[in-house]
Amino acid sequence: MRPWSSEEFEAELRAVGEARYHHLHPFNERMHAGDLTEEEFRGWVRNRFYYQINLPVKDAFILTKLPDAAERRKWIKRITDHDGTTEVEGGIERWVRLGEAVGLTRDELYDTRTVLPGVRFAVDAYVDFCRHKPWLEAVASAMTELFAPDLLSRRIVDVQKHYPWLDSRGLEYFRTRLTQQPADIAHLLGLVRDNARTREQQEACVRALEFKCDVLWTLLDAVQLAYGKAE
Amino acid sequence: MRPWSSEEFEAELRAVGEARYHHLHPFNERMHAGDLTEEEFRGWVRNRFYYQINLPVKDAFILTKLPDAAERRKWIKRITDHDGTTEVEGGIERWVRLGEAVGLTRDELYDTRTVLPGVRFAVDAYVDFCRHKPWLEAVASAMTELFAPDLLSRRIVDVQKHYPWLDSRGLEYFRTRLTQQPADIAHLLGLVRDNARTREQQEACVRALEFKCDVLWTLLDAVQLAYGKAE
Repeated sequence: MRPWSSEEFEAELRAVGEARYHHLHPFNERMHAGDLTEEEFRGWVRNRFYYQINLPVKDAFILTKLPDAAERRKWIKRITDHDGTTEVEGGIERWVRLGEAVGLTRDELYDTRTVLPGVRFAVDAYVDFCRHKPWLEAVASAMTELFAPDLLSRRIVDVQKHYPWLDSRGLEYFRTRLTQQPADIAHLLGLVRDNARTREQQEACVRALEFKCDVLWTLLDAVQLAYGKAE
Repeated sequence: MRPWSSEEFEAELRAVGEARYHHLHPFNERMHAGDLTEEEFRGWVRNRFYYQINLPVKDAFILTKLPDAAERRKWIKRITDHDGTTEVEGGIERWVRLGEAVGLTRDELYDTRTVLPGVRFAVDAYVDFCRHKPWLEAVASAMTELFAPDLLSRRIVDVQKHYPWLDSRGLEYFRTRLTQQPADIAHLLGLVRDNARTREQQEACVRALEFKCDVLWTLLDAVQLAYGKAE
């Protein structure tokens, strides 16, 4: 089979997001509609923290297998975006402040013994995917970032509107991600398009992105089941 | 068994270097005495390059298992020291310039198919050690850096003295390492001393350092056998 053109390939990737990114998940729709209780919101923030602290770990696994120093130099920015540097606060610390804004302590967030099993399995599966798969597929699994800006800009507006008890400074994580993501997305798209040369590789990238959508979706399933109001 | 004191532990680690660091290897002694032919020098630079390009890879494996963002923020400097950043040239690029100073092209250095099997096995064993072992032992294996400053400062002097055909700008790698290493050594010593709390952990660190000395020693064995003059 002939490879997809760049445009066809990108359209296939974007179709995955339209069909199964977690913006469609009922728990997310309830968040945006203002229907979450404080306890549900806290449950989400606390469990999603386990995902956040694992992002630099999965990115470090990708770092171990990128082809050369030039690609590592670009990828390493993703790790410092989350871990921060001595000068600049990172995404993990910003998520701690979101946690504090919903009434969680730093210690509660870092006590990962209380992470829901379904969340742990999903996040660990994501880290393992990046540990074991070829780097191209591991990189492709990060492409849910393509669909994040729309969701994040709506989230900042809807959360401020519907959850007045939540100090809006707690939303700094989302605001910063919005400024970081355009460069990340251009980097991911370029890297994947330049290196997925055969149709087989392109299809493996599409499957990697589907897998990652499943990770995010399953995380919300677990939170909804444990904390969600009965429908 | 009671744990060693900090002083005893550091003395045990330093004793490993005195007994088996590669400054004692006959090939290294011949380098410093001015006895290497141009071909031998090139053979060493070319094969050691395989070690150099694998340093950020093994450091990225350590990054995947360090306990938190604070430790990753410190460790990541080791990766950028070798890979460089968009602004600052890294150690790999400086080693390429050493290669060019001894008459190798960039393409020859990066053509890793020509790496000697014994060098490949030793370097791959080092990367695998950092992939599979607990982070404390992987970190301890980096402590050959404790013994490097003495060797590097002598190397800069001896190479300039004995190998006038080698453009001294090619030695920038060693000069830069000399400036980087004091901070690296303090970081490594602190991290290992603070986390090796039991005698068992301390002894595992000593064994990790012995293993690493074996890697460096075996690398020179392979180069000596392939390129060395008959004794």
